[in-house]
Amino acid sequence: MTAVDLNADLGEGFGVWTLGDDDAMLDIVTSANVACGFHAGDPATLARVCRAAAHRGVKIGAQVSYRDLAGFGRRFIDASPEDLTADVMYQIGALCALAEAAGSAVSYVKPHGALYNSIVTHRQQAHAVAEAIHAVDPALPVLGLAGSVFFAAADDLGLRTVPEAFADRSYRADGQLVSRRERNAVLHDPDQIADRVISMVTKGRVDAVDGSTIPITVESVCVHGDSPGAVHIATAVRDRLIAEGVALSPFS
Amino acid sequence: MTAVDLNADLGEGFGVWTLGDDDAMLDIVTSANVACGFHAGDPATLARVCRAAAHRGVKIGAQVSYRDLAGFGRRFIDASPEDLTADVMYQIGALCALAEAAGSAVSYVKPHGALYNSIVTHRQQAHAVAEAIHAVDPALPVLGLAGSVFFAAADDLGLRTVPEAFADRSYRADGQLVSRRERNAVLHDPDQIADRVISMVTKGRVDAVDGSTIPITVESVCVHGDSPGAVHIATAVRDRLIAEGVALSPFS
Amino acid sequence: MTAVDLNADLGEGFGVWTLGDDDAMLDIVTSANVACGFHAGDPATLARVCRAAAHRGVKIGAQVSYRDLAGFGRRFIDASPEDLTADVMYQIGALCALAEAAGSAVSYVKPHGALYNSIVTHRQQAHAVAEAIHAVDPALPVLGLAGSVFFAAADDLGLRTVPEAFADRSYRADGQLVSRRERNAVLHDPDQIADRVISMVTKGRVDAVDGSTIPITVESVCVHGDSPGAVHIATAVRDRLIAEGVALSPFS
Amino acid sequence: MTAVDLNADLGEGFGVWTLGDDDAMLDIVTSANVACGFHAGDPATLARVCRAAAHRGVKIGAQVSYRDLAGFGRRFIDASPEDLTADVMYQIGALCALAEAAGSAVSYVKPHGALYNSIVTHRQQAHAVAEAIHAVDPALPVLGLAGSVFFAAADDLGLRTVPEAFADRSYRADGQLVSRRERNAVLHDPDQIADRVISMVTKGRVDAVDGSTIPITVESVCVHGDSPGAVHIATAVRDRLIAEGVALSPFS
Repeated sequence: MTAVDLNADLGEGFGVWTLGDDDAMLDIVTSANVACGFHAGDPATLARVCRAAAHRGVKIGAQVSYRDLAGFGRRFIDASPEDLTADVMYQIGALCALAEAAGSAVSYVKPHGALYNSIVTHRQQAHAVAEAIHAVDPALPVLGLAGSVFFAAADDLGLRTVPEAFADRSYRADGQLVSRRERNAVLHDPDQIADRVISMVTKGRVDAVDGSTIPITVESVCVHGDSPGAVHIATAVRDRLIAEGVALSPFS
Repeated sequence: MTAVDLNADLGEGFGVWTLGDDDAMLDIVTSANVACGFHAGDPATLARVCRAAAHRGVKIGAQVSYRDLAGFGRRFIDASPEDLTADVMYQIGALCALAEAAGSAVSYVKPHGALYNSIVTHRQQAHAVAEAIHAVDPALPVLGLAGSVFFAAADDLGLRTVPEAFADRSYRADGQLVSRRERNAVLHDPDQIADRVISMVTKGRVDAVDGSTIPITVESVCVHGDSPGAVHIATAVRDRLIAEGVALSPFS
Repeated sequence: MTAVDLNADLGEGFGVWTLGDDDAMLDIVTSANVACGFHAGDPATLARVCRAAAHRGVKIGAQVSYRDLAGFGRRFIDASPEDLTADVMYQIGALCALAEAAGSAVSYVKPHGALYNSIVTHRQQAHAVAEAIHAVDPALPVLGLAGSVFFAAADDLGLRTVPEAFADRSYRADGQLVSRRERNAVLHDPDQIADRVISMVTKGRVDAVDGSTIPITVESVCVHGDSPGAVHIATAVRDRLIAEGVALSPFS
Repeated sequence: MTAVDLNADLGEGFGVWTLGDDDAMLDIVTSANVACGFHAGDPATLARVCRAAAHRGVKIGAQVSYRDLAGFGRRFIDASPEDLTADVMYQIGALCALAEAAGSAVSYVKPHGALYNSIVTHRQQAHAVAEAIHAVDPALPVLGLAGSVFFAAADDLGLRTVPEAFADRSYRADGQLVSRRERNAVLHDPDQIADRVISMVTKGRVDAVDGSTIPITVESVCVHGDSPGAVHIATAVRDRLIAEGVALSPFS
């Protein structure tokens, strides 16, 4: 029987501010990428999300980021490797304490936003992040983009790499994501998105924007929850996977 | 043979800014109260201090604080118990990751500045801090002020409480510190300070400001390192303890 | 003809996070208390609110706060008078630049949250805030609570003080607000709230919780906009004032 | 008689942390680039520096930066033009209030650190910064690097551009600074540095690292004050200029 993991970003409020519906998403996903305070997530919010995830048996991952609350971690920062390694260790450790106090644990690491994107190609920062994870716990898997220099750096250190696909994003013929700056980068139709996820998960392929069909390796599917529409799409993906007999199961 | 611990606050720079001479102090103390990022201490600074402490066999404690970089944690903040508990767990966890990556561990917790002072009497915040420590690791000792409601709250949860004395502060006849707002709150003469420490450690008593002699229980002596004069005093205290045959040994 | 000002807190998002419906509220109020970055409000958000307020002819006030993003300015901070004065000057100046670039100006100052509450009675902080406003521009009126030590401090410096009433809060027989910790502190029925506002504005009196009727002086009525229900109430208050022939007009 | 301005970065402490000797530098320079709180400078520190500058008749400039206390504004941040424009307006306005309360004013703007460097070539950010300054006050001169796209953007908006030279930096034959990553980027000998400044100011030329002599236009000379050695060099530059009959005079 085929199995796949569903992951989403959670705990992304800060103090009085909320973002998305964490409780709704925890009923959908099997892995929660929980913010660690650098792009979002005050400690009390993170503690609550960790308890809610633990209660439902949803795995907790550390969604590490640049230090940038004002920019929500979506802006590249030219951080030195030394600073970045320490920042990532700090964030993982902070979330570990909250996850463990909730009776769970940090089971994996997924970089967030601009950091996720930059370490697809930025060698120094990719190594800095991989080294941080390895230094905290060499048994922590990393969730990210197949073919990235981050995965190469993680491989070099013996970390397990878990490739993810994006449910609602278009792919180019070379397997890379269509840039968000382009018109057709993001899909919106729940049925079409569910169809694509089924194809990716059960057949290992997906239609690219040029009409070709490309191979894709997926251990986890990333869904979003930051709008009512997003929760609806995530639910559609989950329901279709179950209907097609795919087991939803955390990778970690 | 009598033994005592010497502790000092370290890792209290932030980014480009430094405070005190961490390396000099690591050659003097047996326990380092390392900042955790909320009143001071960017992660790269903290990582360096943890490595330097680990290299010398100096124990690492988490110096937890209110979230207040601008005020260096020296201003009371009316934080809710829920927020404070999560803030303290977050800070301890963050430092744990850096200490463990350095081959050491967080061996105890000491609140900083206004938090230290407020939980001498603030019952809700005292409980919030004690619960945070207990939730992260019930085996972590707390370093602080004998007779505080913080120690009572820690006792209630079964945490080990380690009473400290201040090398350079005057005591009232009731055993409390003379307020820093009073003229004679702080001592400056290295010989006099060293004499007092010897009395506190070997005889369990100290002269109060009114001329009386009062009993004091000391498992650790707090020294400062944020000025050249402070390092000189700390050295004098260390040298005198050794000269008097007192072993310097971490409590944790 | 009677006239009154309607004020509300605006610009209280931060980066990706939003709070309330600024555009809806700008169609209701005559004075916008715009956050200044210390409890909420990244500069781009503030610039947008200033442009929207200027476009509608809504007056802009500086909603100054303790430095506390994580606590949304709702926690007392024991800031020194020197720090607080400088913090308030800094915030007013920052908003001035954004308001003036939008073709408007900062027309008044209203403290936010815990600062608003603390300077009802905290003499040192009240003076620190009043001195900051006076130092930036002695012609700036202050919006706040009649009878507060803040108003006394502002009076001493020759600042104009503008007393406000809260549309949806209960009053005690002595004219103070019923604490939010009590059950009946906040009113929820739009009609009842509109009735009370009419009484306060046109008759200068309001029913207290003990059944007595007390006098109240009101130059501005504070309404909230941080929920759909709150916008509905604010609309009801505005509509009733207009229906009763009260002119809505900024005090500044 | 030839005249030149001397500028230095000041107000770069934060809370308990200090950097450099502001008082010593205020006795040397004619223009103080005062931090604005985004890379350094809590409001109370900035207020003190503004008062000290006003007292000595030293002009105050707004040293605007990326929002990055942890990185001291030395790391490129890929900020959007909208955010950057608002950030710069906010910073200038904040310092204006403090400078005016001190009886002075903000007389010019100089970008700091990574922002200074990025807008030498980054067109979008250069325009965003120039537009912010223009929106706050089109009469504010900008201090920076001749030939930068920032100067071109400022020119386009009609802002006065004031070219500066660096007393202690090596120049390439094309007039650009030798990168700090190269061995000979920074000069250390006070006499040699003073010689070069005299040549730049009185003859409009300087020796490049390849042995050639290049033309340079200088209305202000930037000196540093963040170490005892730096203050010594700044003093040597000032003394030599006076000895050579060059008047020290602010450009603004």
